[in-house]
Amino acid sequence: MARPDGRQPDQLRPVTLTRSWSTHPEGSVLVEFGNTRVLCTASVTEGVPRWRKGSGLGWVTAEYAMLPRATHTRSDRESVKGRVGGRTHEISRLVGRSLRACVDLKALGENSIVLDCDVLQADGGTRTAAITGAYVALHDAVTWLSGRKALAGKPEKVMHRSVAAVSVGVIDGEPRLDLAYDEDVTAEVDMNVVCTGTGDFVEVQGTGESGVFARSQLDALLDLAVAGCTQLAEAQREALGR
Amino acid sequence: MARPDGRQPDQLRPVTLTRSWSTHPEGSVLVEFGNTRVLCTASVTEGVPRWRKGSGLGWVTAEYAMLPRATHTRSDRESVKGRVGGRTHEISRLVGRSLRACVDLKALGENSIVLDCDVLQADGGTRTAAITGAYVALHDAVTWLSGRKALAGKPEKVMHRSVAAVSVGVIDGEPRLDLAYDEDVTAEVDMNVVCTGTGDFVEVQGTGESGVFARSQLDALLDLAVAGCTQLAEAQREALGR
Amino acid sequence: MARPDGRQPDQLRPVTLTRSWSTHPEGSVLVEFGNTRVLCTASVTEGVPRWRKGSGLGWVTAEYAMLPRATHTRSDRESVKGRVGGRTHEISRLVGRSLRACVDLKALGENSIVLDCDVLQADGGTRTAAITGAYVALHDAVTWLSGRKALAGKPEKVMHRSVAAVSVGVIDGEPRLDLAYDEDVTAEVDMNVVCTGTGDFVEVQGTGESGVFARSQLDALLDLAVAGCTQLAEAQREALGR
Amino acid sequence: MARPDGRQPDQLRPVTLTRSWSTHPEGSVLVEFGNTRVLCTASVTEGVPRWRKGSGLGWVTAEYAMLPRATHTRSDRESVKGRVGGRTHEISRLVGRSLRACVDLKALGENSIVLDCDVLQADGGTRTAAITGAYVALHDAVTWLSGRKALAGKPEKVMHRSVAAVSVGVIDGEPRLDLAYDEDVTAEVDMNVVCTGTGDFVEVQGTGESGVFARSQLDALLDLAVAGCTQLAEAQREALGR
Amino acid sequence: MARPDGRQPDQLRPVTLTRSWSTHPEGSVLVEFGNTRVLCTASVTEGVPRWRKGSGLGWVTAEYAMLPRATHTRSDRESVKGRVGGRTHEISRLVGRSLRACVDLKALGENSIVLDCDVLQADGGTRTAAITGAYVALHDAVTWLSGRKALAGKPEKVMHRSVAAVSVGVIDGEPRLDLAYDEDVTAEVDMNVVCTGTGDFVEVQGTGESGVFARSQLDALLDLAVAGCTQLAEAQREALGR
Amino acid sequence: MARPDGRQPDQLRPVTLTRSWSTHPEGSVLVEFGNTRVLCTASVTEGVPRWRKGSGLGWVTAEYAMLPRATHTRSDRESVKGRVGGRTHEISRLVGRSLRACVDLKALGENSIVLDCDVLQADGGTRTAAITGAYVALHDAVTWLSGRKALAGKPEKVMHRSVAAVSVGVIDGEPRLDLAYDEDVTAEVDMNVVCTGTGDFVEVQGTGESGVFARSQLDALLDLAVAGCTQLAEAQREALGR
Repeated sequence: MARPDGRQPDQLRPVTLTRSWSTHPEGSVLVEFGNTRVLCTASVTEGVPRWRKGSGLGWVTAEYAMLPRATHTRSDRESVKGRVGGRTHEISRLVGRSLRACVDLKALGENSIVLDCDVLQADGGTRTAAITGAYVALHDAVTWLSGRKALAGKPEKVMHRSVAAVSVGVIDGEPRLDLAYDEDVTAEVDMNVVCTGTGDFVEVQGTGESGVFARSQLDALLDLAVAGCTQLAEAQREALGR
Repeated sequence: MARPDGRQPDQLRPVTLTRSWSTHPEGSVLVEFGNTRVLCTASVTEGVPRWRKGSGLGWVTAEYAMLPRATHTRSDRESVKGRVGGRTHEISRLVGRSLRACVDLKALGENSIVLDCDVLQADGGTRTAAITGAYVALHDAVTWLSGRKALAGKPEKVMHRSVAAVSVGVIDGEPRLDLAYDEDVTAEVDMNVVCTGTGDFVEVQGTGESGVFARSQLDALLDLAVAGCTQLAEAQREALGR
Repeated sequence: MARPDGRQPDQLRPVTLTRSWSTHPEGSVLVEFGNTRVLCTASVTEGVPRWRKGSGLGWVTAEYAMLPRATHTRSDRESVKGRVGGRTHEISRLVGRSLRACVDLKALGENSIVLDCDVLQADGGTRTAAITGAYVALHDAVTWLSGRKALAGKPEKVMHRSVAAVSVGVIDGEPRLDLAYDEDVTAEVDMNVVCTGTGDFVEVQGTGESGVFARSQLDALLDLAVAGCTQLAEAQREALGR
Repeated sequence: MARPDGRQPDQLRPVTLTRSWSTHPEGSVLVEFGNTRVLCTASVTEGVPRWRKGSGLGWVTAEYAMLPRATHTRSDRESVKGRVGGRTHEISRLVGRSLRACVDLKALGENSIVLDCDVLQADGGTRTAAITGAYVALHDAVTWLSGRKALAGKPEKVMHRSVAAVSVGVIDGEPRLDLAYDEDVTAEVDMNVVCTGTGDFVEVQGTGESGVFARSQLDALLDLAVAGCTQLAEAQREALGR
Repeated sequence: MARPDGRQPDQLRPVTLTRSWSTHPEGSVLVEFGNTRVLCTASVTEGVPRWRKGSGLGWVTAEYAMLPRATHTRSDRESVKGRVGGRTHEISRLVGRSLRACVDLKALGENSIVLDCDVLQADGGTRTAAITGAYVALHDAVTWLSGRKALAGKPEKVMHRSVAAVSVGVIDGEPRLDLAYDEDVTAEVDMNVVCTGTGDFVEVQGTGESGVFARSQLDALLDLAVAGCTQLAEAQREALGR
Repeated sequence: MARPDGRQPDQLRPVTLTRSWSTHPEGSVLVEFGNTRVLCTASVTEGVPRWRKGSGLGWVTAEYAMLPRATHTRSDRESVKGRVGGRTHEISRLVGRSLRACVDLKALGENSIVLDCDVLQADGGTRTAAITGAYVALHDAVTWLSGRKALAGKPEKVMHRSVAAVSVGVIDGEPRLDLAYDEDVTAEVDMNVVCTGTGDFVEVQGTGESGVFARSQLDALLDLAVAGCTQLAEAQREALGR
């Protein structure tokens, strides 16, 4: 059974990572997973929030959001509704945790970096694209700090790991990598996996959207995800010119 | 290396499920996992939200919250802050998804059930206790609806599965079941697993809190969690008098 | 004309005050007036809010809230609605004023105590049960501070009075003590009275719910209330083991 | 011991009730108790809120607020803070209950009246001035409805009672009527009393601001308040040209 | 074609500026443009917001609001809605900018002045009346500061210009000055102009409400507005007794 | 005196209008005025808000927002702050009014179009770029409706005018067209002008940011703005392939 866009079950969509898409931020990446398009910016502030002052540790946090018409039908703005929704909160927290996993906050020193991931166009996998792009933006921001001699440690110590993320899911009983929206809405199981460049796990979130799943399915999905993240890590290395 | 409360690595804390703890709700369970104490109530409304009317399907949703002094230090009330926090949102969504996984919404018919899980005392594992207790409260609410001939299908069809949940984690390199607060804060990996009574997965959420984790660790944690959920399913059956 | 639960007009419902119901708070009391069940916790913080620093005075405040299904039908959570309702505000302020009336803030020294009164089950008289229980929780918190040598004065000077509260009302022309919900909704006059252990008034709030009331009715209600508060003060003394 | 403005203990401040102060509302009264100045408007809407439709009953509600610089020092606007404060809520509810006590909602028919009481200048007793003025504004609105043949009953049946309110308090041990701000802040006991034109009670709210009070003090305050309300009822009758 | 109230196209409504309408504020003016009635108060605080400390500069800001029944039909309170509306925000910003244009913040020294403009009755032109009245209130507040020797410069240096504002519009093709509500709602073009006492512009805001406008119309409107502002400046001078 | 980017005083920055930048919306334009980059999307809904049903008229509205790091330093998200700021409100209202000026709502029929203008990168003139781009997105949306035979009138009747907008200002005494950020912050006078394709005015907003301005300056600025809008109208025509 073919995938809607003709991909193999274990095939990623075309991935692009455009660095310096914006001029103001210290790091700025437009990441595309097929038609999903997320602008990831890294904003550096010298110093840390008050409760962390004097700790010698830096701070990395993330905020995820969608433009109102990133999706098929328009959603009301959360600013107009006056509150951030549950899904937005949940993804912002996931992105933040994932990025903190690749940073040595002591080597970062008392600097704060906010990663803003704004979905300009959504076609499935926005949170995994966000994590994958934000890693590159974060790397550029750390390099920027390094250029200003503002790090407590060496930049390669600050960014001691890479992280990338991908979605996997079961559609019609078949495990598939990197679901587009059309597949996502029909998935029986939906999983987001965040991996380091060396194939370790940072975060695993699997949900039986319309049913439950067996250990064997979970194992197959994890295999797919690790392979996908390995390719994404390679794309990140290329984007960073290494 | 002994656990703080002397348990074996694969041992649950004492679990109690007190049905009918409150008099008003259609289902009401005080669930205790050791010192963690969550009041789970199921509130039935005939009819469904407007956007679902005429679909023939019921609706099950959940809200999780903590009393301000359920924890070691007092937290400000979310009602006073004027917004529900990210963690609360995230757990409410998890509880709702987990409980919907055990209900056939068509057999439920156009009835709505809200599961309120209020943490009266927190000592780790509040979300997993909430899911485990809410299942029993939901079961009682469905029985109540059945007694009023208000279900579209038979009650055993409505509740076609049971769900229970447990936390697992790695502390000092050792995988452990059902973490209490003292263990939770030092865990290198933290995972919440929701299983059916037959050992299938409903939801798997694992996070490398202070590091990353290998596939072998993930496998060991999943084994522990499935075994723990099996015991919890047995406790649920006993509580329901079956 | 008999009361729904067979009580005499001047008879309280069974009252229980369970100390140390929760493990974390410095004071914690589950108070029950019949089926009304309120968890009162006292949370101590060293220091006072910024605007009070250096005054030498302590600070005591209270927050009242209801679990969504404490009542016959479920209410939306105030955290979800994004604002604290008028009734909640009003009762929180009443509880706070009442408890401050029994504390010598100078003897308390620059310590803050927050009294959280969360209604787990409501059957009329929740605010009066809250005040009665919160007094005991506050007493325990002051004892706790005393044990840490953190008070500016002696504990008996800090808690120089006791306070208790009870509702009274006129139903079918008859003045009655401690109304349960069924009576409360049909009362022509509804009054909440807060008294000290020596029978003085701290607060008197009477409302003609469906009509007005004469001075003679007011006098009869005050007599009932003072007698009721005297019994509650005795129950508080017993609970505190004196 | 003389009062700051030379009044006798049982003497009201000069009271004025200026009808039709504004041109748009169906009823509009500028009420002054000395330097306290409250604009009370009554806004009529045909029909009632959705939940009351078909009941045959009308609806009367009230909102109280203060201009930011009605007081000695400026307060932040509640609109800017994004929430209505506890004191505002509490007084709005008191004003609403008090006014509903003088209206036969069945005779009013399915009409809604909102009473807005905006304090333009505050010098103590703003809530009691608001109730006293709002009664006159409400009376004018009912007359307006009568002129449009929109009442279900006769106007004198709709407004079957008058209500007025006054504050009383104990200062330096002396019971006094109608406290101005300077007296209010030093009062040992503070009480607001709402009476009908025939001297019955609608609402009694007494608080021991800096201490407690004995039954005898309560009795003296109630005597003062009833006498004060009788004079206010007379002022209302005069204002209404009767 | 006559105007509804018989005025000439270039004629202002009767303007009154009543100083010291309220007793508490440092400056307080009730301004009336015909039936439009706005209470403008100036509240002085010594010191400036934290971000401005040590700059040597003062701070002037404004807040505009309407009582709920200032208008033909009642509007919900923004405090109850929990947010300040777009129109309110926009006008508050306009009033603040306009008043800052007439103050030398350096000569004011580190003092803050908040101008509250509360519309008690609306009949068109509320924002221009607010600016015109707030100038006089601000002047009184600066005089008050001068009396306390709290200014950094001389008062005539602080208030180095006067500002006044007026609305103009095109109705049935005719340019008219100072639109009342009935004219405002039918205007094809609506413009608010803020001028100094010497006829320079501070702010020009013109909108084609139901159509567009040509340069020649714009020119005619500006001529009318400048002439109107000149008269208002004269009224301000008279009110200030100069 | 040269402009920072070497432009002539009456010269626009390079303008690009990229249609169909996003795939989901019915109209979608990425507009660039130099480094200012705004994504304008037009979202069509059949039907109109409830209060407009049966009127036969359509509805066009706009929302403007900035990504947090569109600017030199990061701003907090309005969704996180829980409220839309004054500046955002003001610009959203301006964009909405401007676009409604070019639409015949009767010919549009009962369809709603929301124009979202999200600033991806800010370098001055974001609101004028938003209006200029939103016009093209709106045009595409109307064409889309026409293709579905959903308009009440002909498309050229619906879009009976074009609108474009540009900023002008006085820097160092010199009137200049289309200010970039560096010029904007130092402008003595700042004006935004919205014109139709035939050179009529839709909206004129001029502010003396750090001073006041004379009629002659206003005239010079208006001349510049009209000439600039004429060029923008030409760019719009080209983008639309006409």
